[in-house]
Amino acid sequence: MKIALAQLNYRIGDFELNTAKIYEAITEAKGHGADLVVFSELTVCGYPPEDLLDYEWFVEKCEQSLEAIAESCQGIAAVVGGVMRNREKGKGLFNVACFMQHGKIEHIVRKTLLPTYDVFSEARYFEPAHDVGVIDFKGVKLGIAICEDLWDMYNDFRYEKSPLQSLKLAGAQLIIHPSASPFNIGKIHLRDKVFSGNIQRFGLPIVYVNQVGANTDLIFDGDSQVINAAGQTVKQLPLFEEQIAYITLGNADFLGVPVHFSEPEETALMHDAIVFGIRDYVKKSGFKKIILGASGGIDSALVQALACEAVGPENVMALLMPSPYSSQGSIDDAIALSKNLGNEYQIMPINSIFEAYNQSLKPAFEKMPADLTEENLQARTRANLLMAMSNKFGYLLLNTSNKSEMAVGYSTLYGDMCGGLSPIGDVLKTKVYALANFINREQEIIPREILTKAPSAELRPGQKDSDSLPEYAILDEILHLYIEERRSRDEIKAQGYDSSMVDKIINLVNRAEYKRFQAPPILRVTTKAFGRGRQMPLVAFHG
Amino acid sequence: MKIALAQLNYRIGDFELNTAKIYEAITEAKGHGADLVVFSELTVCGYPPEDLLDYEWFVEKCEQSLEAIAESCQGIAAVVGGVMRNREKGKGLFNVACFMQHGKIEHIVRKTLLPTYDVFSEARYFEPAHDVGVIDFKGVKLGIAICEDLWDMYNDFRYEKSPLQSLKLAGAQLIIHPSASPFNIGKIHLRDKVFSGNIQRFGLPIVYVNQVGANTDLIFDGDSQVINAAGQTVKQLPLFEEQIAYITLGNADFLGVPVHFSEPEETALMHDAIVFGIRDYVKKSGFKKIILGASGGIDSALVQALACEAVGPENVMALLMPSPYSSQGSIDDAIALSKNLGNEYQIMPINSIFEAYNQSLKPAFEKMPADLTEENLQARTRANLLMAMSNKFGYLLLNTSNKSEMAVGYSTLYGDMCGGLSPIGDVLKTKVYALANFINREQEIIPREILTKAPSAELRPGQKDSDSLPEYAILDEILHLYIEERRSRDEIKAQGYDSSMVDKIINLVNRAEYKRFQAPPILRVTTKAFGRGRQMPLVAFHG
Repeated sequence: MKIALAQLNYRIGDFELNTAKIYEAITEAKGHGADLVVFSELTVCGYPPEDLLDYEWFVEKCEQSLEAIAESCQGIAAVVGGVMRNREKGKGLFNVACFMQHGKIEHIVRKTLLPTYDVFSEARYFEPAHDVGVIDFKGVKLGIAICEDLWDMYNDFRYEKSPLQSLKLAGAQLIIHPSASPFNIGKIHLRDKVFSGNIQRFGLPIVYVNQVGANTDLIFDGDSQVINAAGQTVKQLPLFEEQIAYITLGNADFLGVPVHFSEPEETALMHDAIVFGIRDYVKKSGFKKIILGASGGIDSALVQALACEAVGPENVMALLMPSPYSSQGSIDDAIALSKNLGNEYQIMPINSIFEAYNQSLKPAFEKMPADLTEENLQARTRANLLMAMSNKFGYLLLNTSNKSEMAVGYSTLYGDMCGGLSPIGDVLKTKVYALANFINREQEIIPREILTKAPSAELRPGQKDSDSLPEYAILDEILHLYIEERRSRDEIKAQGYDSSMVDKIINLVNRAEYKRFQAPPILRVTTKAFGRGRQMPLVAFHG
Repeated sequence: MKIALAQLNYRIGDFELNTAKIYEAITEAKGHGADLVVFSELTVCGYPPEDLLDYEWFVEKCEQSLEAIAESCQGIAAVVGGVMRNREKGKGLFNVACFMQHGKIEHIVRKTLLPTYDVFSEARYFEPAHDVGVIDFKGVKLGIAICEDLWDMYNDFRYEKSPLQSLKLAGAQLIIHPSASPFNIGKIHLRDKVFSGNIQRFGLPIVYVNQVGANTDLIFDGDSQVINAAGQTVKQLPLFEEQIAYITLGNADFLGVPVHFSEPEETALMHDAIVFGIRDYVKKSGFKKIILGASGGIDSALVQALACEAVGPENVMALLMPSPYSSQGSIDDAIALSKNLGNEYQIMPINSIFEAYNQSLKPAFEKMPADLTEENLQARTRANLLMAMSNKFGYLLLNTSNKSEMAVGYSTLYGDMCGGLSPIGDVLKTKVYALANFINREQEIIPREILTKAPSAELRPGQKDSDSLPEYAILDEILHLYIEERRSRDEIKAQGYDSSMVDKIINLVNRAEYKRFQAPPILRVTTKAFGRGRQMPLVAFHG
């Protein structure tokens, strides 16, 4: 039996485009003599459709698309994902994978385990399946397990059911595993664990097909693969690319020599994920060009380099907006960077605008000393200029804040927190340096000066980040423990960090919830990014 | 048996404050000779705690608080809500109501139905109860049903279980119903339906205790009540106020004459809810004073009047920021409004700043004609001035956008979309007028001119909202059908609306998702507000 794995990039809600892609893949697979083509989870509508599922027309479109695709399954079978209505009690929908052949949907398999944590909220829409069934296809008993259905014991909590165990008991010989599994650092390794764990438990080979493509904050990396009953990966599809691949099932197991694909080095992987995330957002949201504020600092330099990789330097505009507090060094560095990258840049000083604000505010402020207000004013003036350029010329504004800043609120709401997308809002400052060094791995693209000077917002004379924050190496460790590991103050202090510093940092994080509430969508690259996966009350006492 | 209903305002995560309130209420109830005091859902931590529940210390605090409160229950019993750990498989927590007496927790009742739709996401955290039990207390069999446990058939979908039916079968004679039920227009009426429906089905009297207080976007209105077995409300607590009230249970049912409290008129209710929402947000977030941009238009006038009611005119600052396109009439109207309300105001023209921006942008814009860019620039300049005042003096900036504008994106991101809280972001423009007229019900507070002139953003000469939008009466009907009723284009067109107008409006709504993603939290007063209750993909094809 020859099986095609269709790792494709869908656009959420674009039934016409998605259906066309699916047809095309079926036709191609048929041309290659495949018996079965497997697609990812929620194929026809893309994942995650979120509250579009509350619209009846959307669900109807899903059902109609599944029916229409089934009609085209002649001489080949397909497993296609979508949603279908639940006519009984409970939530109104099922998350399904349809087994299609002979021009119709022959079996509808429902998802049992509905992830509802971090970025997932499937219990909001779906009723779980209450039973499983196997499908006899050309003498092989197929068990279809949708995404989370294989993750029963690999999460923070343990599900009460094991769909795979039920499939095994029902006689399944091969597991078809359509998924929509978002990327984060560590995920590839975790998937290996899940697959090998399941194979140890049940001894069933697995055909894993993931969607590929970025849907705003969520990056789906693909990484589809086939694992034989011995737990060896015998086929692996690329990261961050569409591909249709083929594998042949022998008598009892998959043929093919084991491939040795291990998780790439963390920084390289994060780099590739972010570049892909920017590129797909730009494409799917209809933009062509990117703008960003280039300060001569490390964060904007990194975002600029990533943007140039994503859409080409010819589509990137760097806007330099020096203030009275900008050092000549920073301006020179920013210019050197644009020259190295080959993108266009413009210089637009903010002095006269800043002065006009100060004049207008003078009667209200009387003789009050300058403080954070004036620093924020500069950041917001820059945002206003960037948005004016975006409005006038149709640029997408990329945000340049990193995760450490976003965490402690060391950023100006409506100022440097602006942007349509935040590429490095899930990247701690120490990783920002690692990424910048990665970009410079073959030649100096980001000028050395940007990498070596002390970080500064340059919003007042002689300002340094270290005036108000601990060294980033320490800060990032504490942030990681608090945000990703969800440790308490006491647990973090028990690891030897200075007590008052821990308190200060955690208080800063908690007090900045209101800012992050209005932050742009952030490309998720860790297990806990700010955004939909971390829902915190704004008005609360955080202990 | 004498029962106390404790309708109190908790601060999320503030265990010290919440526990103190609970102790105090128990003491007071004991002083009044009560046998039992009933609190609302998740009493010790406040509702909704969201992802604070992912922190182990938070859960420990909940459990410790429940234990500590139980110790104080001597000579009186109490029903107190919180979360407790699940040591078995499944989600790590239970949403519980503890029955306490004799200094300890005697019974732990778990919630069965976990709302996971609109603003609720309880399946994210909790494992449902799998059984129910009744509690024998002074010869009466109490059945405790937490919030949604009474709503099995009163939602868009029908739950598979009816906890009340199980309690009835288990012999319950009285239902104790701790809740955290957020307000929206129509909710009071719906609660009546739920209570009377349940009493018709099971004939059991109900003691309903809701929390009161606003937690950012969610307004909990109180409205706690006691309904006898005949379905008559014999005790009803006020809306938007803390209160402890008492009721006596006779032999078989509650004593007391029926009270006739029906849902107040919609506009008055919306008014009271918003004023309460602003007041509680200001209080809980630690602000004292409010600032807002006063344009002389209806939206800002309404927000200003509501703010003055919420925190007193002495704590409200109206900032007038006329541009070259502001009419003298609007400036005069804005001044008259502040004089009528008695709040402070300042005039800060934006001309020179706007001019400085235009000069700085001139080389980039060359000779391109003015367009939306320059309109947005003005809105963003105003936001920058408002934020400067906020930063310098500690004002909370209130957003002044209404729901119609938020819906179609007729608002400037980082401009008039700024603010820490949006009081009327869930109020359609037609309701904005209704609220303004309500404020003027006894005397002209909002100048008549503001109510009668054609709506305009005044961002270019002679601009009117009606240049680019249909009349608000029609627009709001279509928005209501699309957003709250979740109708499709075709269904809306079938109701007789102009086809191209419907398409235009729905396209505008869909295209503005990216703006709303960065909007402030919006006080929720309808069944479908923008914000956490409406989660839409940003990059999607909306059909």
